[in-house]
Amino acid sequence: MKLFIDRLIEQIQQKKTPCIVGLDPAIDRMPDSWLQAREIDKQSNLADCAEAIYQYNLMVLDAVADLVPAVKPQSAYYELFGSAGIIALEKTISAARDRNLLVILDVKRGDIASTATAYARSYLSGDQSSPLEADAITIVPYLGKDCLDPFFTEAIQWGKGVFVCVKTSNPGAAIIQEQKIDGRYLYEIVADLIQPACKKSIGKYGYSGIGAVVGATYPEAARRLRQQLPNSIFLVPGVGAQGGGSEGIKACFNPDGLGAVVSSSRAIMYPHLYGSEDSNKNTIRQAALDLIALGKKILN
Amino acid sequence: MKLFIDRLIEQIQQKKTPCIVGLDPAIDRMPDSWLQAREIDKQSNLADCAEAIYQYNLMVLDAVADLVPAVKPQSAYYELFGSAGIIALEKTISAARDRNLLVILDVKRGDIASTATAYARSYLSGDQSSPLEADAITIVPYLGKDCLDPFFTEAIQWGKGVFVCVKTSNPGAAIIQEQKIDGRYLYEIVADLIQPACKKSIGKYGYSGIGAVVGATYPEAARRLRQQLPNSIFLVPGVGAQGGGSEGIKACFNPDGLGAVVSSSRAIMYPHLYGSEDSNKNTIRQAALDLIALGKKILN
Repeated sequence: MKLFIDRLIEQIQQKKTPCIVGLDPAIDRMPDSWLQAREIDKQSNLADCAEAIYQYNLMVLDAVADLVPAVKPQSAYYELFGSAGIIALEKTISAARDRNLLVILDVKRGDIASTATAYARSYLSGDQSSPLEADAITIVPYLGKDCLDPFFTEAIQWGKGVFVCVKTSNPGAAIIQEQKIDGRYLYEIVADLIQPACKKSIGKYGYSGIGAVVGATYPEAARRLRQQLPNSIFLVPGVGAQGGGSEGIKACFNPDGLGAVVSSSRAIMYPHLYGSEDSNKNTIRQAALDLIALGKKILN
Repeated sequence: MKLFIDRLIEQIQQKKTPCIVGLDPAIDRMPDSWLQAREIDKQSNLADCAEAIYQYNLMVLDAVADLVPAVKPQSAYYELFGSAGIIALEKTISAARDRNLLVILDVKRGDIASTATAYARSYLSGDQSSPLEADAITIVPYLGKDCLDPFFTEAIQWGKGVFVCVKTSNPGAAIIQEQKIDGRYLYEIVADLIQPACKKSIGKYGYSGIGAVVGATYPEAARRLRQQLPNSIFLVPGVGAQGGGSEGIKACFNPDGLGAVVSSSRAIMYPHLYGSEDSNKNTIRQAALDLIALGKKILN
């Protein structure tokens, strides 16, 4: 069994970029022309809308599959359509794997005891029992250590990845994550909870599949966490549309040039919202290339 | 539009109990005889397993519909079966509503910005666009105030309920929730974030649909939070199988006898695991009656 973390690092080295593509398909962001050609509008039923988001994802996957190491579907955008949306998510995961892309599923799950185990099995079990099996997922730490452990256990058993939300990029995060306890930030206490599982699961390139979500908007936090979790991969979300700064992005990487994947969603999926005349396979590919080039510039 | 919180209080008064039933359907907890009669085993496909959990839920709903105000499906147990499980969840929600039961969907979602809005719309929108529309949901606060606000906004717009995980019942919760900042616990700071939305949405019985998840295992925390959030309904989970104490349960209620709903899952759904000879409609109904009687004893 090849570890997620080793496959990720090999993909990063092969594609020569830590940039990954978020798959946040939203009907109201898609170009009118694309929707009209498929007869999708506000009156369309859930199954037709869900099939449309899958078809849009296919276009994005075909545009970027040879450029990036991984994609990050955001579960909320699929749950909006209920079971039809989850069918679209299952098909999206399968299509990404067919194109040799790793799938980091952004679900931000968390619960206690047997419920945490049920979530972990839903997304991380490698026994082929789950149609939503991903290579890695995101989880939240508010419920404490015993809500994290079932995810770590499942991830380590199957060689999967888990990214714990440690320091998120949004302005309102500080009221919780930056509370100071005996001179340390709460996000550092959360990072402490990750470290033992991280140390137990280091792959052949020195990194662990037990990682952290770290926003690029707080360079100081990124620097502290980079020191505290030297073997963890950071998932740095929302670069592009969410406007994370280059200083914060740089701080998420180790001197070896590894240590983070940087995710962009809207800026790649919907170029027509950012000045391009349309969003199609070519303009999406160009948007990905532009972000990859920007990433190279920031990191050099 | 009748508010969730007003309907909940009327149901509590009509049924004369704050006890609600958690719907955590797990194949491996169901009686062998029940599974054999339906030809369900470990080799069954996802669709058959998902249909079985729905059928089991129907038995539970029929057993308890006239006894309790609400049910609380736990999303993890449905997500285990992927889209087939979500179909079972949609059908379960619909069957509960047909039986005049309120549905508190335990999803513990949380994310930032437009993603939080997508989650809120998935579960709380009252415009009939979502097949997973519930009366209330649970959410997590680690991402801060701007991750809570989209849920509060959607809930208030449609008269729905939201229960923020403030102080959970598990032993590992303390490492986060009981950190002390300037003499106050982190869970009190989280409660501060709830209070403004709570005050803006008080129904005709003096309570708000913006509530809190508060574990019964920490009586001191329950007392503090009861004082801090006098108008919030507390969702007190896991009584029974998780062994919450009676002192903590009492502390979650106001002197008016209202202020909380107390949820039991396994102890009601699977009486055969707790000394009964079988789990069927009759023994499930008896288990619910026993817990309701226990609740009365604790609160009097």
